[in-house]
Amino acid sequence: MTDSPKKNVLVIGGGAVGAIAALNLEQGGLAAVTVVLRSNYHVVNEFGYDIESCDHGVLKGWKPTHVRAEVPDITKESLKPYDYIICTTKNIPDIPPSLSSLLSPALPYENTTAVLVLIQNGLNIEKPLQDAFPTTPILSGVSLIGSAEIRPGKIIQDDHDRLLVGPFQNRSLASVLQIEASLDFVKIYKAGGKTNCTYSPDVEHDRWRKLVYNACLNPICAITGLDTGRIRLADGGIEGLVRPAMEEIVAAAKQKGVLLAPDVVDVMIGIDPLEIYLSPSMLADVRKNNFIEFENLLGEPLREGKALGVPMPTLEVLYNICKTIQWRTKEARNMVEIPPKKSVVKS
Amino acid sequence: MTDSPKKNVLVIGGGAVGAIAALNLEQGGLAAVTVVLRSNYHVVNEFGYDIESCDHGVLKGWKPTHVRAEVPDITKESLKPYDYIICTTKNIPDIPPSLSSLLSPALPYENTTAVLVLIQNGLNIEKPLQDAFPTTPILSGVSLIGSAEIRPGKIIQDDHDRLLVGPFQNRSLASVLQIEASLDFVKIYKAGGKTNCTYSPDVEHDRWRKLVYNACLNPICAITGLDTGRIRLADGGIEGLVRPAMEEIVAAAKQKGVLLAPDVVDVMIGIDPLEIYLSPSMLADVRKNNFIEFENLLGEPLREGKALGVPMPTLEVLYNICKTIQWRTKEARNMVEIPPKKSVVKS
Repeated sequence: MTDSPKKNVLVIGGGAVGAIAALNLEQGGLAAVTVVLRSNYHVVNEFGYDIESCDHGVLKGWKPTHVRAEVPDITKESLKPYDYIICTTKNIPDIPPSLSSLLSPALPYENTTAVLVLIQNGLNIEKPLQDAFPTTPILSGVSLIGSAEIRPGKIIQDDHDRLLVGPFQNRSLASVLQIEASLDFVKIYKAGGKTNCTYSPDVEHDRWRKLVYNACLNPICAITGLDTGRIRLADGGIEGLVRPAMEEIVAAAKQKGVLLAPDVVDVMIGIDPLEIYLSPSMLADVRKNNFIEFENLLGEPLREGKALGVPMPTLEVLYNICKTIQWRTKEARNMVEIPPKKSVVKS
Repeated sequence: MTDSPKKNVLVIGGGAVGAIAALNLEQGGLAAVTVVLRSNYHVVNEFGYDIESCDHGVLKGWKPTHVRAEVPDITKESLKPYDYIICTTKNIPDIPPSLSSLLSPALPYENTTAVLVLIQNGLNIEKPLQDAFPTTPILSGVSLIGSAEIRPGKIIQDDHDRLLVGPFQNRSLASVLQIEASLDFVKIYKAGGKTNCTYSPDVEHDRWRKLVYNACLNPICAITGLDTGRIRLADGGIEGLVRPAMEEIVAAAKQKGVLLAPDVVDVMIGIDPLEIYLSPSMLADVRKNNFIEFENLLGEPLREGKALGVPMPTLEVLYNICKTIQWRTKEARNMVEIPPKKSVVKS
């Protein structure tokens, strides 16, 4: 077997973001991609993806090089080690299994050259992975794509893929190694010429900036049941909830030394055109009775801000409501036990 | 026509609270009651109420003296003026019609002897009625009944009727007149011997005490979708939401000069036995897509507390979420117009 010039890439999570990432990488010609799927595995394995994309046009039955129902155990299967392992799943650290245990079969201790890329939202998502894989460079991917899987295997990408890639802080690794890994990943990701993927050295800034949306609009839409158009029309939506929440994130970022642009709050309030009535991820998840990704999107910035003495009363309430919503989903899935209902005693 | 010794009583709202009030009054023998019904009018008019009551036992097909589908226009119909007009409807001042316009046909200017009794929750509910009927004594009824209308006309009362009655502050009326009206109402209400109806001079105290429940647990259950049992079991429910909210109400009451018992927060957290998994009124209303009674239960104490300089960050967020929920119901009922959805422009 001769060495392919292509990088061997594993994408964990083949939903709206992962499918477009895999497509980008394959179309650039510098990567052979294995995608690990769950709920849409059978559809995609049999028929491929149907993709309508503002970047790539219409593709019927498109398949990456390999499709998998589980993260491959490369030692057991004697597979070639992956050069890049990209995670596009949601981060729900409060619900097992952990991402590090999920991906460990693909990243054995002997693989010292792999690079992890987290195209995921929120703060401190790299921490448990740095603990589990201390010698692996871990890159941050902040994606500004507009993409949705409207049914299993059917992806509509209606806003361009703009991906900011840079290394997460890791003092135990040489920073040049991490920068090189980032630049190499950007090269293979943008090789197809259709996406805006850039190296961004300031991962903290990119992540806090996106939190202005994701720690605020996202849970507020989930809690109120209103999409990003309706929350702008509803009494109390923006001035009562979204703006105060966003200003708390801006203040926490500032206290962390991350200065966001002065207009970031208004930019984020208006970032989705009103008339598309977009349902952010947490609202979509609540509607499907899925778990919500609130710990890294809302819990972590709240804890960081509070630890630095920033008052965050709005986010505190939103966070605790999210906790109760997560519990509600746990109950619906029989993951918590509750005392049986007593019939009312007539007295 | 000879004068009946019975008081002529109008009850507006014949749901769970109004039906038991009407029953109490009729069974005492000192009142002839007309009940104004809406959604359950046809059922009750034809078949009467089916009542299972811990105070009154089981009654099949019980009817008050008169049943009405609308508030009677006593001038047009030449009816005898009412001595007491009891309102047991919800107060939703943000949604027309107002209670004062609703009841005005039964309380013309010429009727100078009628007394209004508001068996309703929340703060400042008397204000618009005092403006509309400046010479009418208005009494506060704080009810601690446990009663539900499980289907139209079918009432289950599973907790005793305890009613605190006293006059709302009104400096333009002689206080002796209002106290006498209160004592007389208590007399006719408790004449049947089966209820605990007492005169309570401190209406402000009674109302703020009940707000500890109604401004906090009630909206929190509505927002989280959890009943009063589950909110106690859910992560973040009590310590993250209910207790901080209740403590804000206690602080606002204190600033108003109303000292609540030191254990009031714990009493209210535990007032519904966990295992009955009780859905408070706002949660029940959200589930039925009804409007929620949040302005007098939550908005008014919030505004009063804030005006006195009490920090109320938890209630502020809960209030604004309630506002968006009310807007959502308005949208569902076509009471607001929103711009049409645009199909996404492929670019």
